[in-house]
Amino acid sequence: MNLWNIDEDVFDPKKQHTQETAYTIGNGYFGTRGTFEEGYIGAEPATLLFGVFDRIPIGKEELANAPDWLPLKLFANGERFRLDRGKILAYQRTLDMYNGVLTRTLRWESPGGMRLTIKSERFASLADEHAGAMRYHVSIDELPGAGDGSDGQEVDVILWGTFNMAVGNYDLMHWESIDQGREDDLIWFQTQTLRTGVQLVQTVSFDTQAPGFQKEPFYSDFAPGWRLRGSLGVGSTLTAEKLVVMYTSRDTESPRIAALEHHHKLISGGELAQQSSSAKGAETTPYEALLAQHQDAWHGYWQEADIIIEGDDQAQLGVRFNIYQLRISASLHDSRYSIAAKGLTGFGYRGHVFHDTEIFMLPFFTYVQPALARNLLLYRYRLLPAAREKAKENDYKGAQFPWESTIDGKEATPEAIIHPESGEIIPVLNGQIEVHISASVAYATWQYWRVTGDDEFMRNYGAEIVLSTAAFWVSRVEFNAERGDYEINDVIGPDEWHEHVNNNTYTNYMAKWNIQAALESLRWLRSTDSDKAEQLAHQLELNEQQLEHWRSVSNRVRILQDQQTGLFEQFEGFFKLELLDQSQYTGRKTSYQGLLGMEVVQRYQIVKQADVLMLLTVLDQQFDLQTKRVNWDYYFPITDHDYGSSLTPALHTILACELGLTDIAYKMFMKGALIDLDDLRGNTAEGIHDACSGAVWQAAVLGFAGLRLNDDGYTTKPSWPDDWTRLAFTFHHKGKPIRVDLRRG
Amino acid sequence: MNLWNIDEDVFDPKKQHTQETAYTIGNGYFGTRGTFEEGYIGAEPATLLFGVFDRIPIGKEELANAPDWLPLKLFANGERFRLDRGKILAYQRTLDMYNGVLTRTLRWESPGGMRLTIKSERFASLADEHAGAMRYHVSIDELPGAGDGSDGQEVDVILWGTFNMAVGNYDLMHWESIDQGREDDLIWFQTQTLRTGVQLVQTVSFDTQAPGFQKEPFYSDFAPGWRLRGSLGVGSTLTAEKLVVMYTSRDTESPRIAALEHHHKLISGGELAQQSSSAKGAETTPYEALLAQHQDAWHGYWQEADIIIEGDDQAQLGVRFNIYQLRISASLHDSRYSIAAKGLTGFGYRGHVFHDTEIFMLPFFTYVQPALARNLLLYRYRLLPAAREKAKENDYKGAQFPWESTIDGKEATPEAIIHPESGEIIPVLNGQIEVHISASVAYATWQYWRVTGDDEFMRNYGAEIVLSTAAFWVSRVEFNAERGDYEINDVIGPDEWHEHVNNNTYTNYMAKWNIQAALESLRWLRSTDSDKAEQLAHQLELNEQQLEHWRSVSNRVRILQDQQTGLFEQFEGFFKLELLDQSQYTGRKTSYQGLLGMEVVQRYQIVKQADVLMLLTVLDQQFDLQTKRVNWDYYFPITDHDYGSSLTPALHTILACELGLTDIAYKMFMKGALIDLDDLRGNTAEGIHDACSGAVWQAAVLGFAGLRLNDDGYTTKPSWPDDWTRLAFTFHHKGKPIRVDLRRG
Repeated sequence: MNLWNIDEDVFDPKKQHTQETAYTIGNGYFGTRGTFEEGYIGAEPATLLFGVFDRIPIGKEELANAPDWLPLKLFANGERFRLDRGKILAYQRTLDMYNGVLTRTLRWESPGGMRLTIKSERFASLADEHAGAMRYHVSIDELPGAGDGSDGQEVDVILWGTFNMAVGNYDLMHWESIDQGREDDLIWFQTQTLRTGVQLVQTVSFDTQAPGFQKEPFYSDFAPGWRLRGSLGVGSTLTAEKLVVMYTSRDTESPRIAALEHHHKLISGGELAQQSSSAKGAETTPYEALLAQHQDAWHGYWQEADIIIEGDDQAQLGVRFNIYQLRISASLHDSRYSIAAKGLTGFGYRGHVFHDTEIFMLPFFTYVQPALARNLLLYRYRLLPAAREKAKENDYKGAQFPWESTIDGKEATPEAIIHPESGEIIPVLNGQIEVHISASVAYATWQYWRVTGDDEFMRNYGAEIVLSTAAFWVSRVEFNAERGDYEINDVIGPDEWHEHVNNNTYTNYMAKWNIQAALESLRWLRSTDSDKAEQLAHQLELNEQQLEHWRSVSNRVRILQDQQTGLFEQFEGFFKLELLDQSQYTGRKTSYQGLLGMEVVQRYQIVKQADVLMLLTVLDQQFDLQTKRVNWDYYFPITDHDYGSSLTPALHTILACELGLTDIAYKMFMKGALIDLDDLRGNTAEGIHDACSGAVWQAAVLGFAGLRLNDDGYTTKPSWPDDWTRLAFTFHHKGKPIRVDLRRG
Repeated sequence: MNLWNIDEDVFDPKKQHTQETAYTIGNGYFGTRGTFEEGYIGAEPATLLFGVFDRIPIGKEELANAPDWLPLKLFANGERFRLDRGKILAYQRTLDMYNGVLTRTLRWESPGGMRLTIKSERFASLADEHAGAMRYHVSIDELPGAGDGSDGQEVDVILWGTFNMAVGNYDLMHWESIDQGREDDLIWFQTQTLRTGVQLVQTVSFDTQAPGFQKEPFYSDFAPGWRLRGSLGVGSTLTAEKLVVMYTSRDTESPRIAALEHHHKLISGGELAQQSSSAKGAETTPYEALLAQHQDAWHGYWQEADIIIEGDDQAQLGVRFNIYQLRISASLHDSRYSIAAKGLTGFGYRGHVFHDTEIFMLPFFTYVQPALARNLLLYRYRLLPAAREKAKENDYKGAQFPWESTIDGKEATPEAIIHPESGEIIPVLNGQIEVHISASVAYATWQYWRVTGDDEFMRNYGAEIVLSTAAFWVSRVEFNAERGDYEINDVIGPDEWHEHVNNNTYTNYMAKWNIQAALESLRWLRSTDSDKAEQLAHQLELNEQQLEHWRSVSNRVRILQDQQTGLFEQFEGFFKLELLDQSQYTGRKTSYQGLLGMEVVQRYQIVKQADVLMLLTVLDQQFDLQTKRVNWDYYFPITDHDYGSSLTPALHTILACELGLTDIAYKMFMKGALIDLDDLRGNTAEGIHDACSGAVWQAAVLGFAGLRLNDDGYTTKPSWPDDWTRLAFTFHHKGKPIRVDLRRG
């Protein structure tokens, strides 16, 4: 078993869309789902470009599925190869994560009895994010009536390499064909989003060194490209290379010029090929040169990001798959957008950004890929004006981040959805009252600063985020004169099965923390850059009296905790709700909300996802072990770990490890690690659960290895499965890489 | 001014979608919007096939915009012709309604300075409904640097004739490419709806007799077709003919075989060409043969359906445009579907069928095209089982027709819509409580029988419709013990700005009428076919006691009418609502509902569309002139004639004529006649207002000419505008055509 490879040796049409997600390639600039280049009935080909949105009804906007760059169409003696025709004699598909390359090898017998071996290979260059590349090998193994001298026969082979604009997000089209043309060996194809007017130029080259093959351009408003034509004898092979370059008007004013220049360099063996460590001089094809660089980039990534788990192949493969996913959805060069709930891998959640990024994914980037983490935080910084606008519209101060965010930072949560089949109207309140996200953004900012020591970032961007969100909280609380404390009423906490709740412990505690962090940031800023501190205080209208009020609020936000036992109440009245007899529902295949309906589920002490327990994990160092244990014992059993939220099973691992519950920790970890490889939730077809990927990394590093930072350095406290013999990874602390290599036995 | 031609001599991109609707061609089997064959940015090409639906979220299903058969792509010396490039020197687009042909002639200067004359012509054959045809002429007028001997130069010309599957209903795609191939001079293209699995096969031939031009097939999964290539000298012309044949799995089990056979006949000058009265032997091209037949068919139609108005060119043109529309949306050979609110001309209302068909359009067909009317009524007959099911689900008896109907007869009204921009949830109650449609179906059936004398239809189909809907009403009423009468509560009447109303006069009166008509039908049936009568009575569980109950209900349904004045109250409590000061809203560009919101508009005596007045029009002969006058005086001024419903302005004409209010009658008539030609409602882009087209015919014939039938024959009572000098038309009564030719002066 190669522990870098995700593979299948049978193609199961029933799992078509799930596997399209699982075999996605990407580089942060674009992600391309693992559809077959030759097409397949019902396929959902998708290339999603980082930050390229088109407007839609109700859901505001969504990542606009770009013209597909994969199509290859093969005819041999007039017979068209497709996986759904003829007979598959052998099949193997592999995502080689170490090299970032997807390959498919198969042997096919055509309806007419010809036998071919076909191998395809593709990647989204991690070294050159505008480039995608494919290589396609076709060999003629046998002709019908073999043995009668067919060895001398030639087969007429036609291979088309094109784009395809006839794609949509679940069939909703977003692009219009604008223009196309040819420049030397390149066909360029210019399209534009229908409603937001983003220009995209894609260029394609398509070449072979097979003798006697002719190439001709192919013009079409929807599927331009190239056609190769020639003949092949039995036993010989055609190898064709298809290179694609993409630029949008988000990148440059002249995407056509940029794409053509860039592509010309690639195929003329220009500077990029020269730089490649594996370039073999003149004999290297453009594809090979690009591939070598790409592989180098992935090797570099893995050197920093890999987690080695020895003694448990499933866990090893699963954790790598999740680390692979985190990279392909994050952009190294663009801070105008962040990582969506499904990254660039599917249409689910329409490319909208949630607290998934800050709470679940950012720890990975902060510890392992701080340059990427910085981009993700800059995204929020850029959108502070919109967050201030949202606060103002609601009569609050400071900055209130939207529950769902796209590229302008306005609230993108739909106000309601209509069930597509039943026609039932489902109000969506999260955009109005799921407010804890503002603290999530502050928290991720603070954590990034503490881990990386990036004072420059904190000074210029981070402090403003933390202070502005704190200002929001101070205006959001309501003073209860009777009790002399501050309440936060009418919210949804992380457990979204309870709406319109008061004093959600997670929300209140995070608000309290946010205000304290803001006060501390301001103190730090005053001591290191008093001008900047002055400017921020002025902007937020913060005088000493105000700050005193901030302190008072942070000290007196209501926290529902039993002082004797340490047990938190999830929100006011939670303990008065009925307990749900979960044993009635053994074998269920959907969530309790799905079974009971949104109205009924609210009556029960049944939790969609970690809420109190998430607080104890996120603000880990503020709580003692006894508090963690008593809350774990209460909340863990009443949480829907299977069909609630995908976010928290892996996150539970951290607390379980602290409490020495290694078996449960492992079970929760694997629910996360395999969520998409085994389609555990039944919705992998809609895209990868990226928050879960981030939680899996946290589970391994903060959970099983027990990594904790302190001012002097770090500690680990392994609490791991008995089978594991080694757990090793690298992280960065204050700019320095640190290697942790735990071994047992 | 040619009073058969709709034309424009400038193309205004701002009116693009409006004009696409206005220039739609069709034949009842398919309708094709008037997009340019060469493409245009933002275009909404659409070919809608009668009864070919695909499922959608919320709205259940919609007519699935089929692969476009229009695309033609012209390159001259490598320069591509498009209307949005180069310079338009002259432009003329004409819909010749007499011949059913759309032409566009233009002179174009390419960016490189070449001048071309391009003429395109297309039609959807009315004689052969599976066939669409186009002819395209390209002449080279002048080359850059003319006068220096360019006359001898040849221009390299490439002309592509293809399909295009990259289309959707407002960008939502419905088709998947299945297969394609070539058979002699035909390329076939097989596609399938994504969710309902309807198979479509389109074939295309593309030929020219221009010397030296070569033809080659063009394979593409999305846009297969043909490419012509050759050269043209200055002053010479290329003429190419593109013929398309379409068959679906609704037509035959083997649409591919059917389409190929049919198409082969067309191009081999087979039987169809032989039949043509204009065929000129061997020299006639397939296009010309098809065109001749097609024109004959349109001439035949106009002979029966035209309304001649002399003295008023606008009115003449407008009325013909509406009569043209009625024909292109109705099928002569298929009773499994009916005419949608927008026919086959646009995406509005998703191809769903409303009472628009029975109340507004059917009178035209009944009087003028009874064979088509019969199909439209058979559609409802076929769907009686679903209507019975709907009644049963609601605990009623008999048959309750759905407010919105598609091909299975189930309720297709969405339960709610979400405003695409504001996110506001708009509940749609019509599917539940706008119940008057069941009486509309009975009424249209009855009217058809009375006008045509088609006893066979009434015996085998019609009586069952009338009796089944009556049974629904008898179960739908509620007995009020206190008053001893029957109520119909909680409905929406034709005026949809008032919801949950009780005893809507229109609904109650139509219910009363429906029960009476049923009793009369049964009497007739008993006297002419007692077996059939027995069978129906058994089916509906009708014994004498039951029939006595029916009589009692019909006599005592509550009708809110002031016995002294004759004034009806639209529904219980209507007169207690506030009057709306409409003078406040002068110059408004939207409806009162749009201005006030759905909740507020209900508080006012402001009417969306004729309700009481529609009753007085539909059941015309049951009310005296004084009753009509008093109700007109009350309701006409409080109705939104401009932005309420498009259905009734033209319908108001009938009553206005009876009351001698010719000026108002004319004003209302023209609001209807020009509704789409002048885009009076601002939504012609979404499709033709077909109900309005039907109302325009009724306005001319039943209004201005004052036609009324009686048992002996007919009377006319002209009440028409002073300018009009002639009003002539034909209708059928009991199988005989009758010519009315009114002249003045």
